[in-house]
Amino acid sequence: MADAARAAILPWFRSTALVSDNKLDDGFDPVTEADRAAETAMRAVLADRRPDDGIHGEEFGRQPGTSGLTWVLDPIDGTRAFISGSPTWGVLIAVGGAGGPDLGIIDQPYIGERFVGGFGLGEMTGPLGTRPLSTRATEGLEEATIFTTFPEVGNKAERTGFHRLASHCKLTRYGADCYAYALLAAGHIDLVVEAGLNAYDIQAPIAVVRAAGGIVTDWKGGPAHEGGRALAAANPAIHAAALAILSDTD
Amino acid sequence: MADAARAAILPWFRSTALVSDNKLDDGFDPVTEADRAAETAMRAVLADRRPDDGIHGEEFGRQPGTSGLTWVLDPIDGTRAFISGSPTWGVLIAVGGAGGPDLGIIDQPYIGERFVGGFGLGEMTGPLGTRPLSTRATEGLEEATIFTTFPEVGNKAERTGFHRLASHCKLTRYGADCYAYALLAAGHIDLVVEAGLNAYDIQAPIAVVRAAGGIVTDWKGGPAHEGGRALAAANPAIHAAALAILSDTD
Repeated sequence: MADAARAAILPWFRSTALVSDNKLDDGFDPVTEADRAAETAMRAVLADRRPDDGIHGEEFGRQPGTSGLTWVLDPIDGTRAFISGSPTWGVLIAVGGAGGPDLGIIDQPYIGERFVGGFGLGEMTGPLGTRPLSTRATEGLEEATIFTTFPEVGNKAERTGFHRLASHCKLTRYGADCYAYALLAAGHIDLVVEAGLNAYDIQAPIAVVRAAGGIVTDWKGGPAHEGGRALAAANPAIHAAALAILSDTD
Repeated sequence: MADAARAAILPWFRSTALVSDNKLDDGFDPVTEADRAAETAMRAVLADRRPDDGIHGEEFGRQPGTSGLTWVLDPIDGTRAFISGSPTWGVLIAVGGAGGPDLGIIDQPYIGERFVGGFGLGEMTGPLGTRPLSTRATEGLEEATIFTTFPEVGNKAERTGFHRLASHCKLTRYGADCYAYALLAAGHIDLVVEAGLNAYDIQAPIAVVRAAGGIVTDWKGGPAHEGGRALAAANPAIHAAALAILSDTD
């Protein structure tokens, strides 16, 4: 499925023929031809190989299944990055039951990077070869690098919560979309904090981060796989330190 | 030189052995072993092939020459991206006289992308092959995508100026360092605005953007190759629109 999505997307990335339109009247959420082509390609693989599984995709919605398994797909997570030419968007693929994802993939087609986590496997392949995924041991916020998508994250309370947490961290970075979770799983950063997520934005990251030894919850410490607010942390100590600040958010 | 820098840097990128220390006591400006190794490698090429040229490098300073040409080198522009594992840092190489750069290269070793501009050439090579560089024709700020390194850009007046300009634009993105100029030259974004630059941060971007049909000046419309404030624009119309807002900055 990730291979099929790559083939469908790459002809559109950085193409001068790129067409984007606004999906939401009240915000900037471009949908590209690439988004639709990639989800169509992944659904074709599932129709052929897993016809009894359910599907929940960003572009074409929910299709019920009978197997108890559901594939949760975001063909292009990070459409703002995509239309800017930045290589920090990704294809998100997860599969699991009602309790959340058992397996997840974050794929970056342009760089040729794939981060996979689940069923005992946690590894990435890319320009430097194949490596195991393993999160960092950073214990204190004062040594932590924190990522979110953009400084205007979430609603006013969420924005306040994020920036309060970020003020305790060593380095704050923006603009990485799903790629930030991949960097956390690969051991390069310590925290990713987001709000306003859909299930298809977070299920693949949850599986990849967990496989690498990290933790993903909502901002109260509960499950995050249905979307909303997410706190991904490299290890239990840094998770607890971040949660102590974020959990006050209304 | 770009090949030599790639070979020197890549063993350190995303390495668990990465050592960073703070170059400035009052700020976060990590210097890595990779930075030093890459500038050493580039200087070795120049010592062999261009011994009479001057050098101005971020890591090892100025070395006078007698030819009238100076090589301006930033071995890793975007050290914050580098230490976070993000592939938006770059190797910057420029060469020119007192009037500014005649040729520039922005190289991204991990992705394997190289953007070259000067002496009538403007092209990039990367995962999708070789393509000419050509900026966009966007005329109005309301259709423009603007980049800067982080929202806390520059001093208070500069921050105010940047955000006033960004409020007129369609999309604001952060965190791309020199890679933003490459995206502008390749026709994907419209504006890059930065402050507090050194000459070695901006000379290669100036050459690459110019070769693609873009314009780089300071915030008053004057030359930017000595560093300070930079406004890079895809074309004269968008440059004029941005300058009309930024030029009020004290």
